[in-house]
Amino acid sequence: MNNLLTLLKIGGGKNINWDFIGEDMGKTGKYIVIHGANHKIAEISKKIGIKEKKIVSPSGFTSRYTDKEALDVFLMTYAGLTNKKLVATFQRHGINAVGLSGVDGRIWEGRRKKILYSVEGAKTKLIRDSLTGNVEKINTELLNDLLRSDYTPVLCPPAISLENEIINVDNDRAAAVLADSLGIKEIIMLFEAPGFCMDLSDPKSLVKEIKFDELENFIKIASAGMKKKLLGIKEAMQGSVEKVYLGDGRIKNPIRNIRNGGGTLIYKI
Amino acid sequence: MNNLLTLLKIGGGKNINWDFIGEDMGKTGKYIVIHGANHKIAEISKKIGIKEKKIVSPSGFTSRYTDKEALDVFLMTYAGLTNKKLVATFQRHGINAVGLSGVDGRIWEGRRKKILYSVEGAKTKLIRDSLTGNVEKINTELLNDLLRSDYTPVLCPPAISLENEIINVDNDRAAAVLADSLGIKEIIMLFEAPGFCMDLSDPKSLVKEIKFDELENFIKIASAGMKKKLLGIKEAMQGSVEKVYLGDGRIKNPIRNIRNGGGTLIYKI
Repeated sequence: MNNLLTLLKIGGGKNINWDFIGEDMGKTGKYIVIHGANHKIAEISKKIGIKEKKIVSPSGFTSRYTDKEALDVFLMTYAGLTNKKLVATFQRHGINAVGLSGVDGRIWEGRRKKILYSVEGAKTKLIRDSLTGNVEKINTELLNDLLRSDYTPVLCPPAISLENEIINVDNDRAAAVLADSLGIKEIIMLFEAPGFCMDLSDPKSLVKEIKFDELENFIKIASAGMKKKLLGIKEAMQGSVEKVYLGDGRIKNPIRNIRNGGGTLIYKI
Repeated sequence: MNNLLTLLKIGGGKNINWDFIGEDMGKTGKYIVIHGANHKIAEISKKIGIKEKKIVSPSGFTSRYTDKEALDVFLMTYAGLTNKKLVATFQRHGINAVGLSGVDGRIWEGRRKKILYSVEGAKTKLIRDSLTGNVEKINTELLNDLLRSDYTPVLCPPAISLENEIINVDNDRAAAVLADSLGIKEIIMLFEAPGFCMDLSDPKSLVKEIKFDELENFIKIASAGMKKKLLGIKEAMQGSVEKVYLGDGRIKNPIRNIRNGGGTLIYKI
């Protein structure tokens, strides 16, 4: 069990303030970080002139269609641009960060989905060249080595498949598997909203607390992006995780704000 | 002293064969890797529509002019695209590679050059926004931890400055500082030529052996790119390094070829 370690998930939105986060981290505990890069992916795709392709699964989930070209943009934006700039920001705040993708040392190992179904209007298409999968195994040894030596691991997709292909994976699901593998009890997720809001456009509709037993009800009514997050959280809480905080990554002292009741707390009794 | 560890420098040319290198590494020893990405930098710069800018120093050296925009491409291409694909290639050959930039854990720490002189025709211009520097200090602790746990570190620029800026550094000079800091005795450099050739266009002009005492003479006659490499080698050999092999990274068994006399050996007596 890792009582003293918090998994901090930093969203990939444009207005997330890394400086505020880094500043607060140094004063509030020990972290392992996973970050997104959605905003930058869109920006770089546009610059390179690649259209971001989406897949809608038969069960209604939308995900990125990652072919070879998209994977290159993914590698550049996640493991290159965003990861290293975040690491340098943390270094500036006295946090000895080490940035790694799931490929490095097989930190995130998974299975490539060899067939995907894509709903396009009335038709369902078969996709075989998708470089995506799910994280199934975490190299906890490397991460624990780094944590023992007081480094802060800063992780991001992609992951590596059992057959050594680079695969894109869902960050929220990967975070769930990681948290449980390390025996982490607390997750903090920072994004561009004050927490879970009943009405996305109304910050006042923030839900302050959700008991784990009630989570399923919220999964049903959540918007697409939030639904994925909540599913990841559910998975994590079926494991070692006891508390998950959702909150605002744009404001000063984001971690202290969230721990003081400024966001949404999901908890097991 | 690190008698059993070789520093393997892999050039960033288009025709370097990573699979041949990975295959050979598994059978020939223990390595720490530094890689280039020049070819990819040119390709991605073109795709994004950024012109690669060069600086010619008053002493006649040409180097990359790294402003903010160029640094982004640099991060994407080195730490993202190239580093992670190389790591996955090595994983495929059973080498448990971990890719890191010099920013991560402050592996490569240096000083930013606050002023650069750029010769443009008859004029010499002052450049103040250059994000470049030289590696001065290596975080050997993190590297030794990884090596002890049987990981193969795969390193690349950029580095981090004392003031926590991300800075572009010369790979060959960084390699020299790294080798000496780790007490490494052997360096292997693989690129798109059979070794040091008196005439770049004639592989038969390959120089098989260069004594360290003679190195200065070769530095004088070398082409621009090779001159930088030889200066790095000179620096490394003023430290712990006793043997440097230069050779072909395009062919099967590149490491065994070079150790069997297929390239150029520079050695201290």
